[in-house]
Amino acid sequence: MSYYKKVLIIFSIFVTTIIRKSILEKDEPKFEKIVTTDCVIFGFEDGVLKVLLIERNDHPFEGWWALPGFFVEEHESIDEAAQRILHIYTGLKDIFLEQFYTFGSVNRHPQRRIITVAYYAMIRLKQGRALLPSSPDVKRAVWCPISEVPQLGFDHNEIFEKSLQKIKRRLGYQPLAFELLPEKFTLSQLQTVYEAVLNKKLDKRNFRKKMLNYGILKTLNEKQKGVSFRAAAYYKLDRRKFNSLFQKELSL
Amino acid sequence: MSYYKKVLIIFSIFVTTIIRKSILEKDEPKFEKIVTTDCVIFGFEDGVLKVLLIERNDHPFEGWWALPGFFVEEHESIDEAAQRILHIYTGLKDIFLEQFYTFGSVNRHPQRRIITVAYYAMIRLKQGRALLPSSPDVKRAVWCPISEVPQLGFDHNEIFEKSLQKIKRRLGYQPLAFELLPEKFTLSQLQTVYEAVLNKKLDKRNFRKKMLNYGILKTLNEKQKGVSFRAAAYYKLDRRKFNSLFQKELSL
Repeated sequence: MSYYKKVLIIFSIFVTTIIRKSILEKDEPKFEKIVTTDCVIFGFEDGVLKVLLIERNDHPFEGWWALPGFFVEEHESIDEAAQRILHIYTGLKDIFLEQFYTFGSVNRHPQRRIITVAYYAMIRLKQGRALLPSSPDVKRAVWCPISEVPQLGFDHNEIFEKSLQKIKRRLGYQPLAFELLPEKFTLSQLQTVYEAVLNKKLDKRNFRKKMLNYGILKTLNEKQKGVSFRAAAYYKLDRRKFNSLFQKELSL
Repeated sequence: MSYYKKVLIIFSIFVTTIIRKSILEKDEPKFEKIVTTDCVIFGFEDGVLKVLLIERNDHPFEGWWALPGFFVEEHESIDEAAQRILHIYTGLKDIFLEQFYTFGSVNRHPQRRIITVAYYAMIRLKQGRALLPSSPDVKRAVWCPISEVPQLGFDHNEIFEKSLQKIKRRLGYQPLAFELLPEKFTLSQLQTVYEAVLNKKLDKRNFRKKMLNYGILKTLNEKQKGVSFRAAAYYKLDRRKFNSLFQKELSL
């Protein structure tokens, strides 16, 4: 047997094995890069409800505005992926974060089929402080007033609108508004949050009456300081009472 | 040059091309078999709220009880996949169907990482008629009273419980209850649906008063037949009024 014939036989066996293995492996579904999580992160500052938007820097999406998001890794749950995004983009941990909808139309991403599980978060923006991410794929991140949200990439405008619908609805039975306020707040501050989320003016007397009637607020023995006259009282949310009220709403 | 040498060279070029192609393709994420849709299909019959459960017949899940579900195909949206499941398992089309949560913990499926987008549907069960699927992977499908749901495979008990929570909540602002009833119904029938979903007895006088006060029901000039005395009046849902009431709830 010639030298080349021997090599050819050995080579054939080797190659057949590789190809078979490679084909078999290709048939196994891979989780990576199919599912993303996008976060609508709301922040409240100076009476204005804002949302965190990023400008992308990665080819071919340079200059696109979008909601912050990442691929879900194989080793992490979707909830963990959402917490990771929130941490990277705001530096915060253990923040109120809730899944609200999964977007899965066929052509929502221009490159290939990707579905996204969307979350919203509510954070308190400390005045003058907006935490920004550091990632080569992101040019900048800004807090944008919700009335000024520009054209976003992909289906992110739809995701944003849906998140607004959901928080408006859930404001009635979840303590969402209080996530946007400091621990102690005045009734005026609370009203400003409701007005910002609902995007409408509310009657002051009516609002106060209803809020106090619910019995979900604890009055603190403390008043606003540095105010010339009629200092407003501070309140705190009574979570236990809020939750029991929320349970009652279920019954007719 | 020997014959075998020539063959070896040609063979090498050919094989290198195949391997390169195969490796490149393997790097591209494939959508298939990563995302499933599971449906919690509720049906109402004889005053009892039921859910459609299947017994699986495919290895290694023989004998497992589960919610009906399938993989989302690359060419269909998640909504379309849910409609497909509903059609296959009930024979029905254009049915009220709503996405309510996506389940994505790392170990929810014993074989590999799979996430599922869950939907619920509400259908009217005609007495004595339960439409069943025909699939080799499914041994049987049954309408199970919600109080008798057994141990289900995967995280399907959690999915089912979450769907119940969601419909209880949404009963207050969506015409879900009416999806379970025929076009025209008596107030007693409506009350039975509410009692079944909320899993509690409601006061008859109170229920009637509230329902009629909402102004969402049209009285029909027709009464129950074949009833010996005190025939009950039939009603119809006024969808326009229901929707405007639902809008109002949003405001404080």
